[in-house]
Amino acid sequence: MFELLKTDASSKARLGRLTTPHGVVDTPVFMSVGTQGSVKAIDPRELREMGTQIILGNTYHLNIRPGLEIIRQAGGLHHFINWPAPILTDSGGFQVFSLATIRKIQEHGVEFRSHLDGSLLFLGPKEAMAIQAALGSDIAMVFDDCPPHTATPRELRAAVERTIRWAKECREQPRANGQLIFGIVQGGVNNSMREECAKALVGLNFDGYAIGGVSVGEPEPEMMRAIEITEPFLPVTQPRYAMGLGTPAQLVELVARGVDMFDCVLPTRVARNGTAFTRNGSISVKAGACKADFRPIEEGCDCFACRHFTRAYLRHLLNVGEILGLRMLSVHNTRMYLKVMEEVRQAIANETFAEYRREFAANYVPTQKVLLARAAVAER
Amino acid sequence: MFELLKTDASSKARLGRLTTPHGVVDTPVFMSVGTQGSVKAIDPRELREMGTQIILGNTYHLNIRPGLEIIRQAGGLHHFINWPAPILTDSGGFQVFSLATIRKIQEHGVEFRSHLDGSLLFLGPKEAMAIQAALGSDIAMVFDDCPPHTATPRELRAAVERTIRWAKECREQPRANGQLIFGIVQGGVNNSMREECAKALVGLNFDGYAIGGVSVGEPEPEMMRAIEITEPFLPVTQPRYAMGLGTPAQLVELVARGVDMFDCVLPTRVARNGTAFTRNGSISVKAGACKADFRPIEEGCDCFACRHFTRAYLRHLLNVGEILGLRMLSVHNTRMYLKVMEEVRQAIANETFAEYRREFAANYVPTQKVLLARAAVAER
Repeated sequence: MFELLKTDASSKARLGRLTTPHGVVDTPVFMSVGTQGSVKAIDPRELREMGTQIILGNTYHLNIRPGLEIIRQAGGLHHFINWPAPILTDSGGFQVFSLATIRKIQEHGVEFRSHLDGSLLFLGPKEAMAIQAALGSDIAMVFDDCPPHTATPRELRAAVERTIRWAKECREQPRANGQLIFGIVQGGVNNSMREECAKALVGLNFDGYAIGGVSVGEPEPEMMRAIEITEPFLPVTQPRYAMGLGTPAQLVELVARGVDMFDCVLPTRVARNGTAFTRNGSISVKAGACKADFRPIEEGCDCFACRHFTRAYLRHLLNVGEILGLRMLSVHNTRMYLKVMEEVRQAIANETFAEYRREFAANYVPTQKVLLARAAVAER
Repeated sequence: MFELLKTDASSKARLGRLTTPHGVVDTPVFMSVGTQGSVKAIDPRELREMGTQIILGNTYHLNIRPGLEIIRQAGGLHHFINWPAPILTDSGGFQVFSLATIRKIQEHGVEFRSHLDGSLLFLGPKEAMAIQAALGSDIAMVFDDCPPHTATPRELRAAVERTIRWAKECREQPRANGQLIFGIVQGGVNNSMREECAKALVGLNFDGYAIGGVSVGEPEPEMMRAIEITEPFLPVTQPRYAMGLGTPAQLVELVARGVDMFDCVLPTRVARNGTAFTRNGSISVKAGACKADFRPIEEGCDCFACRHFTRAYLRHLLNVGEILGLRMLSVHNTRMYLKVMEEVRQAIANETFAEYRREFAANYVPTQKVLLARAAVAER
């Protein structure tokens, strides 16, 4: 199911290949986020053209709208959204704890009110797995308890215990034909809790392991530490997925720490605010500085936006509120993430990853604005 | 410049070919509206794929944002927006009279305040033609006085006189290389004023003639009458353009009344409200009725949306506010308009237009909602 093709000599970076019912995914991989059944503002043809291998869907959101029955009638999520390639579905745990008004955490799940209309709903391991089975995603995630960055040690401990217990329940549920299942390690930046959670999940023999409890508002050093203290307890033979991360520079650093899979709303979210990612960091295409700038967003970029339009035109579109502007920035940013991952894979294959990583970090100037945008977790 | 290829025996419908600096346009033609330099939500590749021959730009809007200097630096509007095919630019007259706060109508134009920031601007024949020359459009429109549907006879008379005087001034201004210029006939539903205005303009020997003062809130019978009382005074050897019209059924009827060119915001505007055009009239894809409807928007339609997505999926996207939903409805509606024009041309060529027209009218059920959307003229 997962082949580890090569390991970098200078770091923990890995080159791999993950086989799913709807196709093979080369890792390290960036997965575009299609929370509600659409990668925001981008169509499936554009996604394929830019080299998208796998996208995300979300149990919590899709279960509320359009509702499971519609997707079931459509023949599953792939058919409903017309995406024939791999899909990973998040379990909804993250949204239940971050978006919904929680009524009561119970033994077998959470009773909560929909963020949309306040209706009373219940989601637990059994429900989350049943929904994901009906969606027919290629990779299902366990239903976990994802506490905020500000959780007390006592809350963190309860979340870890619940996450392990629910993971076991999830493991026992029926799944769609060939559907893989990934565990999610919680434990904040507490070494022993991360170790305990990871070991317990590994004992349940999942097809892959996610590191959760990151991208929940923590500063970057804590995020990196959460990954670093968890990774050693994950089997080298299975894919590792850092949930909800991050900036392009963070992704390269996380690859170096042994992570194979990523998802993040940043490329499309900042696009809608007029911000584009480049090798030198993010730039505001909407800003006045681009008013008469007739270069593409990024010289040498092969995305549809950079092949067809100038910063000046895109700036005008963003400035007057034309949808084509945010569409094209979404396309550029998503392609930029995918291209960086392509380069990372090539560098690992060519045994030049150390150099690639050094150069990437030297060129990329992180901006506070983008890091803050990542901290706004609600959309994931 | 304009070749009249065939005239229908049963009606005034005409088959023609209009040659412009950026290419040939087959008429009758529907021109998609790209007011601010973008056909709303659609990219140039999608426009070409669906058979778009010519699009519109707008002097008033483009002159305010991004401003003429930026477009001049870009090498003209075609380069700025990356649209290598024909462009017609409206003169801004319509917007000055409908959008702006008018300060003073003067001998040589109008002093007005921008609808955007209230800044004091001046637009007249000289300015409108200079801007259109700099934009480098294939067809420039004269700067006219477009009175509302509620204008008194005295106001209508003043508008006609001003329109004629300004048309003469426009005719004398320098233009871009090969740029065509169309006159605009005003006169409401007053026979003698339409005749007077048309004859005066024809005396100025324009490359084509638009019928203005329609799509200004008037009921359909008045709109049809304005066309019918104007058309006899326009030379058969020149293209005729009905400004800001209309629904698909109206377009077929207007072709039968001798009109060759159309533009309308309806296809993209109603798309953003979740409404799609079909041969049977418009339908609300956003409505609950489409919730579990797994057919395309229209059976047999060759547009990108109908080839890839179901009503149920598009309804979901519209319902949750995903941009792909309104994108796909914009694509479908625009393709529908273009396809109807393709069929109209084929029918005239095949001498089956009478039958086509009859069938189209029999199938198409107009809805009040869409007619009202047309009446909201501000966006044109």
